[in-house]
Amino acid sequence: MLAVGVDVGGTKIAAGLVDERGSVLGCVRVSTPDSPAATVDAIAAAVRELGAGEVPVGVGVAGFVATDRSTVALAPNLGWRGEPFGERLAGGLGTRVWVENDANAAAWAETRFGAAAGRDAVVCVTVGTGVGGGIVMDRQVWRGAFGMAGEIGHLQVVEAGRECRCGQRGCLEQYASGSALVAAAREMIAAGGPDSAGLRTACGDRAEALTGPVVTQLAASGDPAAVRLIGEVGRWLGVGLAGLAAVLDPECFVIGGGVLDAGELLLGPARSSFAARLPAGDHRPHAPVLAAVLGNEAGLVGAADLARLALLGESG
Amino acid sequence: MLAVGVDVGGTKIAAGLVDERGSVLGCVRVSTPDSPAATVDAIAAAVRELGAGEVPVGVGVAGFVATDRSTVALAPNLGWRGEPFGERLAGGLGTRVWVENDANAAAWAETRFGAAAGRDAVVCVTVGTGVGGGIVMDRQVWRGAFGMAGEIGHLQVVEAGRECRCGQRGCLEQYASGSALVAAAREMIAAGGPDSAGLRTACGDRAEALTGPVVTQLAASGDPAAVRLIGEVGRWLGVGLAGLAAVLDPECFVIGGGVLDAGELLLGPARSSFAARLPAGDHRPHAPVLAAVLGNEAGLVGAADLARLALLGESG
Repeated sequence: MLAVGVDVGGTKIAAGLVDERGSVLGCVRVSTPDSPAATVDAIAAAVRELGAGEVPVGVGVAGFVATDRSTVALAPNLGWRGEPFGERLAGGLGTRVWVENDANAAAWAETRFGAAAGRDAVVCVTVGTGVGGGIVMDRQVWRGAFGMAGEIGHLQVVEAGRECRCGQRGCLEQYASGSALVAAAREMIAAGGPDSAGLRTACGDRAEALTGPVVTQLAASGDPAAVRLIGEVGRWLGVGLAGLAAVLDPECFVIGGGVLDAGELLLGPARSSFAARLPAGDHRPHAPVLAAVLGNEAGLVGAADLARLALLGESG
Repeated sequence: MLAVGVDVGGTKIAAGLVDERGSVLGCVRVSTPDSPAATVDAIAAAVRELGAGEVPVGVGVAGFVATDRSTVALAPNLGWRGEPFGERLAGGLGTRVWVENDANAAAWAETRFGAAAGRDAVVCVTVGTGVGGGIVMDRQVWRGAFGMAGEIGHLQVVEAGRECRCGQRGCLEQYASGSALVAAAREMIAAGGPDSAGLRTACGDRAEALTGPVVTQLAASGDPAAVRLIGEVGRWLGVGLAGLAAVLDPECFVIGGGVLDAGELLLGPARSSFAARLPAGDHRPHAPVLAAVLGNEAGLVGAADLARLALLGESG
């Protein structure tokens, strides 16, 4: 049976019709409106446009989702707090809705159909605007007792470090995300050294116009400063992975999200740093650090699959 | 059916005969010998002394245990590397042996019979000489893909922080353990301020003779410097719990180990610091931080119960 998957990001919404094998049969993309109510309307319109009829709808949201799988307790990048999101959408659509943390949804997709297909214990880290995480153990998404597990971006890596929107300091997200990448690039431009020439040119000398994809493309084209900036994000990512390995000891890691467009420029430093920072690393297997393969579609594919499994009682 | 549980600590070994309800019917305690071979002999002698006959034997060891549940890959506090420990002990005893990380065993005991009885998702932190951890999810010990999960003591809390025996820096164990407590007390004595008078008296002016229990007792008697030192350990413990909550989101935490003898002097600061450091703490339930109730026996009770369940196929 088909299901609809929706990925609600900070800037755009993607809705897709997904089959049992994780293939996307059709997709609609719109900008993310400012308010939760307008977002519900935009999603409902996108789902109707897909013409799927009354199939289960899974929605991946960048935020903490409560155990009712409907309420978004906090989505800092969207500015939502305590939104009864799934209930509203279900009311608007007249179908059943399953709300999932977007990184959990992406982790599930990569474990079912992607880079970690066939593996049982997988930690996926999504390096986009923020850093999200999804944990699959014994082939089940681990959501936690209060539905808030896998918030890997908020693992502290630096005591009294950079301020984070979650209210804490030194969170991994402040060092290993697309936002951190852009902030570091802007600092490099502000410092005005000769090594920032490529970055300055790429943004037309307007540091405020710089984006993660611009830095990533510049790195891919060989600009040494951009390569170094991406490498620094990768290095911090490896520090986070080492902590996760100490606690969770997964079979493999899967790295996804927009910054993965940098490919080995991100993963190489992440793997080196992970290997160097793994506790008792000389005395244990090192979990491979794999690139996600489902790209932007992972969130919606996973959300659709989870909705199908949860709402129809089908087995994974 | 009865089972034998053995807890192999850095300084002493405890072996006990344990029933299905987690009650210890008899116990033998001996010092931990220097070598793995002598330790096997000492355990075999202790088990024979219990007179249990050929019942399953579960052994909890402070170290990384491989997936064969026999080989101790690395036990820094014991100085073991790649020891085929369970196999040797089984050969010596003529019975089946299950080797478990000691903190996993203690976590299982607290979840089955102790502070977290009836809970499904529990993270136990053992604050002793080092810091161990045990993760129970969906009422199963989570050992990880390579048998090395729950090494909470090696979660990095300070970038480029204190050196750890695991080869890394800034591990939680270097801030929130009995060893860290003693090191801080010795530093306080070395600094020679008037606030260290109680500590100096307690160790007869020989800082090198200071132990964790001495500091803990001094704190219990109200010595302000000792209270402050225990509080600092608790504060760091809370930082670690906040990171674990971000990743695992357990139903509750259970704190055990020797330093728990300080009771609320440890747990109070740990709870405050956990609450203050929890990411998005204003928008989510706070997992209660509970005191372990099984004391020193948790490790052997859990090891015995796991051996019975695993080797006899009984269900928990």
